[in-house]
Amino acid sequence: MPTSARRWVLASRPEGKPVRDNFRLEEIDLPDPGENEILIRTEYHSVDPGMRSRLSGDSYAAALPLGATIDSAMVGVVEKSNNEKFAPGNLVTGGFGWVSHALSNGRGVQKLDPSLFHGPLRPTAAIGALGIPGLTSYFGLLDLGKPKEGQTVLISSAAGPVGATAGQIAKMKGCRVVGIAGSERKCDYVRGLGFDGAFDYHDANLAEAIKTHCPDGVDIYFDNVGAGMLDAALLNMKEHGRIVVSGQVAEYNAAQPIGIRHVTRFITHRLRMEGLVVFDYFKQFPTAQAKMARWIHEGALQYTEDISEGLEGSADAFIGLFEGENLGRRLVKVS
Amino acid sequence: MPTSARRWVLASRPEGKPVRDNFRLEEIDLPDPGENEILIRTEYHSVDPGMRSRLSGDSYAAALPLGATIDSAMVGVVEKSNNEKFAPGNLVTGGFGWVSHALSNGRGVQKLDPSLFHGPLRPTAAIGALGIPGLTSYFGLLDLGKPKEGQTVLISSAAGPVGATAGQIAKMKGCRVVGIAGSERKCDYVRGLGFDGAFDYHDANLAEAIKTHCPDGVDIYFDNVGAGMLDAALLNMKEHGRIVVSGQVAEYNAAQPIGIRHVTRFITHRLRMEGLVVFDYFKQFPTAQAKMARWIHEGALQYTEDISEGLEGSADAFIGLFEGENLGRRLVKVS
Repeated sequence: MPTSARRWVLASRPEGKPVRDNFRLEEIDLPDPGENEILIRTEYHSVDPGMRSRLSGDSYAAALPLGATIDSAMVGVVEKSNNEKFAPGNLVTGGFGWVSHALSNGRGVQKLDPSLFHGPLRPTAAIGALGIPGLTSYFGLLDLGKPKEGQTVLISSAAGPVGATAGQIAKMKGCRVVGIAGSERKCDYVRGLGFDGAFDYHDANLAEAIKTHCPDGVDIYFDNVGAGMLDAALLNMKEHGRIVVSGQVAEYNAAQPIGIRHVTRFITHRLRMEGLVVFDYFKQFPTAQAKMARWIHEGALQYTEDISEGLEGSADAFIGLFEGENLGRRLVKVS
Repeated sequence: MPTSARRWVLASRPEGKPVRDNFRLEEIDLPDPGENEILIRTEYHSVDPGMRSRLSGDSYAAALPLGATIDSAMVGVVEKSNNEKFAPGNLVTGGFGWVSHALSNGRGVQKLDPSLFHGPLRPTAAIGALGIPGLTSYFGLLDLGKPKEGQTVLISSAAGPVGATAGQIAKMKGCRVVGIAGSERKCDYVRGLGFDGAFDYHDANLAEAIKTHCPDGVDIYFDNVGAGMLDAALLNMKEHGRIVVSGQVAEYNAAQPIGIRHVTRFITHRLRMEGLVVFDYFKQFPTAQAKMARWIHEGALQYTEDISEGLEGSADAFIGLFEGENLGRRLVKVS
């Protein structure tokens, strides 16, 4: 058994884009698991743009204290167990963050059913397509967006794990789906997932580009970006259109909130805008996960992972999210 | 029978606040009513802040052409009728605008049941508390706001006809109601209507004043103003709060849209914001009007009118709306 573990902690609060010095990799003692405890070895942890706001403390969740471990989802293997619910070798997920090992009393630790995870459904999907990003797409699009056959759905950060999943679910519902992404490579990627159209926001006057790709207007805008992109979408919404506020990545690093200008459109076009925090749907997670697992096995839902190797690179992997580096869910392979 | 009529037309499009020169009072020939037509003499017409956007053409309705009669609601009396559905002396409402007389084939003209209009329910209420402003309050608050007993409802332009009615309906639903208005006199007025609190926005840091008056947060913000007031309300919304976008008077005269900054609150606080155009509820108007007529007769719903005399003052009455002059529904008594 290892006697020490490594973990990333918050060294200082970022101003604007996070930088390497905001994070510190520490080595700490790892005691043997106590009564009822288990020792988990991390196989993969995620890096998530939504974590950015907790580093400054502008989030629904409490601000992360200085010196605390950076939160994230992880997939790991039970190495040692004093808890009757777990056995060594169990594949589990939990929210232990950017760590090499975790001790836990088992609360919040989910055992994965190995019979489900085969073929296209890899264990990492448990913290991706079947995890928080996938569930955000599922409940955001279906519960708030309420897509109907033939409607036009516009998605920002379309190549990200949330946007790509939302777009594929919208296609299953018979919608026309247009994605906005940050490079031609990402546009090709989402077209390959079945999106009907995609454009690179770098190239374009946003409002005009949306109009070109959605000439009859947008029924549902699934927004992961906010600010100017949301404003441009507002100018292209159909009457009674719905805006799902899933993420606001353009706001997370801004010193001052940016927001939107075209609020009168809410009256003239009878728009609805609504935000979600996926944990509110907690009780419905198992049903959604079962459905999405089936879609993945049937080939109807694809997901892509962008995996970097080694815990020592976690901070850089996170910082790179804001440079638009990643295509698909970004994970760090720890062991 | 008169042989000429007077009407106000759009002389030029306002930039910013409307001025007197944007309007022109004309005298026109008034032919006898033709086959199937009726001649209506205006008793009262309304002046409505929502009309402002149509003068520039930034509205759900088409821009008003230059030279066209300024639209509004009116209450009048049938002077002459060649239409079997109407008889001289009938009290009617219609959307004929700022005119002394109107010829009509009867389409869109509603005959008022004189047996309803007595005591506190004056015929002018047909274009006020039972008209577009009252119906906007009714459907905006009840259908979009969905108030529940014990909730806190914040209302901007609280002394205006829409806000004052929305506040009284919210009180009937058992809510705690706080109003924002433009003077101490208006605050006294809404307190007199039963509002639990009110403050003058001139005095105050808006976000702090809302917090003082709604220390536990706002469940429903019924917004008639927009821009900075909406932004301040956003900072005080409770989780799962709802924002009803009823009017955006702070935007109507702005050269550039102003908008809001705190969009991330839609995620962190799971907010919903939705706009309405009351005509979408057209089929439910009679039910709502019957209910509101009963409330008025029972004394549960009060309304106030601010009546100026003479068609020659219509433009000034309209311009004054944007100076915050009026307390209650502003009408012009024509004859």
